[in-house]
Amino acid sequence: MSKFWSPLVNELKPYVPGEQPKMANLVKLNTNENPFGPSPKVIEAIRAELNDSLRLYPDPEGEALKQTLADYHKVRPEQVFLGNGSDEVLAHIFHGLFQHGKPVLFPDITYSFYPVYCGLYKIEGRTVPLNGNFEINPEDFSGPNGGIIFPNPNAPTGCFLGLEHVETILANNPDSVVVVDEAYVDFGGETAITLVDRHPNLLVTQTLSKARSLAGLRVGFAIGHQDLIEALNRVKNSFNSYPLDRLALAGARAAYEDEAWFRECCTSVISERERVATELESRGFEVLPSKANFVFARHASVGGAELASGLREQGIIVRHFDKPRIAAFLRITIGTPEQNDALISGVRSLVS
Amino acid sequence: MSKFWSPLVNELKPYVPGEQPKMANLVKLNTNENPFGPSPKVIEAIRAELNDSLRLYPDPEGEALKQTLADYHKVRPEQVFLGNGSDEVLAHIFHGLFQHGKPVLFPDITYSFYPVYCGLYKIEGRTVPLNGNFEINPEDFSGPNGGIIFPNPNAPTGCFLGLEHVETILANNPDSVVVVDEAYVDFGGETAITLVDRHPNLLVTQTLSKARSLAGLRVGFAIGHQDLIEALNRVKNSFNSYPLDRLALAGARAAYEDEAWFRECCTSVISERERVATELESRGFEVLPSKANFVFARHASVGGAELASGLREQGIIVRHFDKPRIAAFLRITIGTPEQNDALISGVRSLVS
Repeated sequence: MSKFWSPLVNELKPYVPGEQPKMANLVKLNTNENPFGPSPKVIEAIRAELNDSLRLYPDPEGEALKQTLADYHKVRPEQVFLGNGSDEVLAHIFHGLFQHGKPVLFPDITYSFYPVYCGLYKIEGRTVPLNGNFEINPEDFSGPNGGIIFPNPNAPTGCFLGLEHVETILANNPDSVVVVDEAYVDFGGETAITLVDRHPNLLVTQTLSKARSLAGLRVGFAIGHQDLIEALNRVKNSFNSYPLDRLALAGARAAYEDEAWFRECCTSVISERERVATELESRGFEVLPSKANFVFARHASVGGAELASGLREQGIIVRHFDKPRIAAFLRITIGTPEQNDALISGVRSLVS
Repeated sequence: MSKFWSPLVNELKPYVPGEQPKMANLVKLNTNENPFGPSPKVIEAIRAELNDSLRLYPDPEGEALKQTLADYHKVRPEQVFLGNGSDEVLAHIFHGLFQHGKPVLFPDITYSFYPVYCGLYKIEGRTVPLNGNFEINPEDFSGPNGGIIFPNPNAPTGCFLGLEHVETILANNPDSVVVVDEAYVDFGGETAITLVDRHPNLLVTQTLSKARSLAGLRVGFAIGHQDLIEALNRVKNSFNSYPLDRLALAGARAAYEDEAWFRECCTSVISERERVATELESRGFEVLPSKANFVFARHASVGGAELASGLREQGIIVRHFDKPRIAAFLRITIGTPEQNDALISGVRSLVS
């Protein structure tokens, strides 16, 4: 703290990302990265941009990438907003589209960056409890609010809310922007992008960090009604004209040009997820039904903190949240078959 | 405009970056890019990162790059803050370090993003007029204020304010954060980073977009007292944990490992700048004394808008600001010798 800090800085409670340990040979199952690398076409496309053109600014609007995403998702480019990772997209949404004076609603158990954005932009947040099965109850998202946001599948639970329930929330809140944060949708969920033309209050965000294996490249986007996108463009153009660099723009486009690679990665992750869940259940774990690239699980008798530190001693890093309702759980990213084997045998040694 | 826009979005007046035309064969002298490409070592370093590791998040703190910059500038890594281009760094400074309730001071003729940030964060900005020679008068930056910011060299004038005058501003404002935006400092200016240990209220920003030829990679940084850097980290970690991607982190480090390349590029730009200035003066232009990679010049009889559109017809793009006091001027980026020849002959045809 210093006399030069603004009152805002004094009050901020920053987000704490999952640890990025620098030791080699760890089984790193703590930040929901894809165990498989990106498509070779991504590497090729970036290599082709790796030349003197780096001296030039990128296209500030990222028009080529917007067109790629619009074609892929069957919308118009004017319905696409790009950001330096979906976290930046979410920040601009909180800043530009959520209203002051009424609370923004999000689940009590959810992505822990949402309350941080509320603090950054001085927005009141109100948590809506998940039900006893850790599911979103659509009817609970109602009453006066300045906006609604939830991940689908939710994080860290992995539970997916069917699109008919998403539509209930949209219909119950016609005057609020409703944001569906689909970071994990490609591992078995169903995107709400198909609903944007029917619901002018719907904004869907996605990232290339998970299913597209590009956490290291920092690309995210939002799709919705052109008016919502225009609001985000105004915020972005008042913040940073060029959020995506030339290499990220090129690599992101190429990621959508190799559908086979993408499908294969997702299928492998899903099949490994089901195997890990079955193994954990056979060892006394309750595993929430996951449509994400992780499972959220608690053991009948051994606590979450104890399991996490026991695994760490074996060089296996998972995420544990020391928070109400979920302190017993571990969030375990689905890794390669070998990593998952290590996780399963590590867990076995701790609960037997 | 839409019922979903917050009052903030309705009021925003976004920044307008220099045009990035998509036509080939233009002589593009409008966005102050370096005419020379980045060091081959930058290309090599990025290529070495171009692999499956893109599936993993980057280091959220960018520690290796902070160490490189700290070593280069003879400060400690805790005194370095990284951003996705220096525009993002500036945005976080306005958000976290400038105080409400008193005006933030900046020159009347300066980087036009500053008033945009004021709008984004609801800060009052007050412009301080440059003197008749378009120079900053240090004594004019005084009185109650919530912070001070100016580029050095200033943009779009190119004029450099000696460090003794920067120290006058620092000494006159011991309770305000004073930001020296050194985007163009390597083309003949002198950095104020050498002053940070004496002035806890000084923050210096730089970018890799100009002298380091990496506008396409989006890397900027700030250096100052550890307390100021900590404030920026708190804002950054409440906004986006991972602002710099893996390739940008690697490329940026390498740019500081080829000092010879950097020096040679800067020397060439400076020598071309002097040649362009002399040629323009011989054709009836007044050219402000520039320490940047551009010149700011007006003709005795032909207007700025007329010159800019005449050059455009010849495929030469320069920047013209239709603003009070500077409407007669052109801001002309220094290009390759061939581009500068084209500019000079283009100008000749318009003023003879």
